[in-house]
Amino acid sequence: MYESIAVVGATGAVGSIVLELLDKRNFPYKTIKFLASKRSAGKTIIFKGQSHTVEESTPEAFVGVQLAIASTPDETARDLLPDAVKRGTLVIDESGYWRMDPDVPLVVPEINAAAAKNAPKGIISSPNCSTTQLVMAVKPLHDYGKAKRIVVSTYQAVSGAGMLGTADLENGIRAIAEGREQTVECFPYPIAGNCIPQIGSPKEQGYTSEELKLLYETRKILGDDSIKVCPTAVRVPVVNCHSESILVETERKITVSKARELFAAMPGVVVQDDLDNRGQGQYPMPYFCSGRDEVFIGRIREDLSCDTGLAFWCVCDNLRKGAATNAVQIAEYLQYGA
Amino acid sequence: MYESIAVVGATGAVGSIVLELLDKRNFPYKTIKFLASKRSAGKTIIFKGQSHTVEESTPEAFVGVQLAIASTPDETARDLLPDAVKRGTLVIDESGYWRMDPDVPLVVPEINAAAAKNAPKGIISSPNCSTTQLVMAVKPLHDYGKAKRIVVSTYQAVSGAGMLGTADLENGIRAIAEGREQTVECFPYPIAGNCIPQIGSPKEQGYTSEELKLLYETRKILGDDSIKVCPTAVRVPVVNCHSESILVETERKITVSKARELFAAMPGVVVQDDLDNRGQGQYPMPYFCSGRDEVFIGRIREDLSCDTGLAFWCVCDNLRKGAATNAVQIAEYLQYGA
Repeated sequence: MYESIAVVGATGAVGSIVLELLDKRNFPYKTIKFLASKRSAGKTIIFKGQSHTVEESTPEAFVGVQLAIASTPDETARDLLPDAVKRGTLVIDESGYWRMDPDVPLVVPEINAAAAKNAPKGIISSPNCSTTQLVMAVKPLHDYGKAKRIVVSTYQAVSGAGMLGTADLENGIRAIAEGREQTVECFPYPIAGNCIPQIGSPKEQGYTSEELKLLYETRKILGDDSIKVCPTAVRVPVVNCHSESILVETERKITVSKARELFAAMPGVVVQDDLDNRGQGQYPMPYFCSGRDEVFIGRIREDLSCDTGLAFWCVCDNLRKGAATNAVQIAEYLQYGA
Repeated sequence: MYESIAVVGATGAVGSIVLELLDKRNFPYKTIKFLASKRSAGKTIIFKGQSHTVEESTPEAFVGVQLAIASTPDETARDLLPDAVKRGTLVIDESGYWRMDPDVPLVVPEINAAAAKNAPKGIISSPNCSTTQLVMAVKPLHDYGKAKRIVVSTYQAVSGAGMLGTADLENGIRAIAEGREQTVECFPYPIAGNCIPQIGSPKEQGYTSEELKLLYETRKILGDDSIKVCPTAVRVPVVNCHSESILVETERKITVSKARELFAAMPGVVVQDDLDNRGQGQYPMPYFCSGRDEVFIGRIREDLSCDTGLAFWCVCDNLRKGAATNAVQIAEYLQYGA
């Protein structure tokens, strides 16, 4: 059992779910700290029925903390986490900053839990939300038939942009309902009633940072740099849960029935796949997956454009398995093992 | 000039735009009739500042009508249009029913206008909305580099499901704004705040009718049955304008700069492609394309997963170029030629 743990970014969209999971899953510790930015320090958090005061996440706040789960912006993770590590804290980091560092393991416990045990920098990264559900789906296909190529188009919820993103959609929905113009604070354009084909900042070759995460993080987690990925990341007016239209080409052909079997056997994956179902098709949808810890897969079918391709639809709560749940699972693995 | 024309389905979502276009573009005719289902017969339509009464679209209503533009459900098109043709009417049909008939041309004027002149059944079909924008985008790439394979994931607006679809989203948005549960009349599930990965009915191999249209109609319009398509059709909570994430593999490699040049030279296509643009990326979005007659393309980039692949994002007003505009363009071609 850990003597002392800390939740960093405890007042944020992901941090508050980390707290919920630590409580619900009875994560073992003796003392717990709630850290956040200077702006949120002093706020009160109710945890397990008790009031706690949020402390500012200064380097000194980590003295005596054995394990921290951090959900902060990239720049905070860059500046703060080495200081935490220097004070003896092992950090599970949800930010994007450390993920591609060769000395930082990038972990999805169902796929590469053991990698978490080799963290020379004292930091273990949890992947980007859109990557986690992609690799959870690709992993069983890859093990069986070796994935050569992935084409993925995302339908990403506003909660992935944090509380300000959610506010933009909520305000936009109210504006539409009341016949007013939408104003936005988080996104570059109105998001209610719109699709924005840009998430993150422009990077190489016309791709965005979010899209390149789907390439590089996938390769790192699956441990195979030969996998090719064509990513398109799009923000849609959905409050929570990312959806992905995924095409995987494998070396060995995978039939639809084999794929169903492989997905069903993958821990953390739920298959919802009955397009017919007497007129009420069954497939995953963000509206119904919110609050769930699993990755949902449906619309499984042979790719009509390639003999060894498999197409499917994948939905996951981006704040849970896409972030908080995965981080807490890493913490549980470190505590209990596989 | 036509002596007499008719607009069938004149009170519907597409029909009302057909009327607007006939007016705005000064389509030449001497008399015009407004036809609709029994339910809408007797309604008043204001056209060019004058009141007209909507007539029921019985077979006899077509007597003396030279040209009709019909926007009706498939079953109505199946039953009604042969009767109209028997009475001497040439029909431009927006429904799905006749499109794949080998004796019915399927026409996008910028691509295969001349096909409209060979209509042995007296019916000319206009493609499905999601197909039209796809082929408008693929055509210049195909001409230059021969398209071998298309992977397309759609983000389709509710207006594609007609006025009931739009009502479902509007009611859903009001329900969310007021904290109520959504009720739906048109879609199988709530659409506000959701993505529904089913459009149309289940067909072969786990694909939906909407998805197979993206395959078969594309082949017919481009006149190339060797083109392979992997389609995924998804309804998103957008009022109007379909978006598509498209990947095209060609025999001859097409660079991004060449693709921009090819798209820009395609009549009816507008390129909006500057991801950087000092922090305010430029790319097409449904929110801003509504009411426009063109097909908009952006996010043009080399496919990171295939040397001869090109990825891009395409948005089009599904009620306009996806339906009404294309039909009126066919009518104009028959009148004026290319």
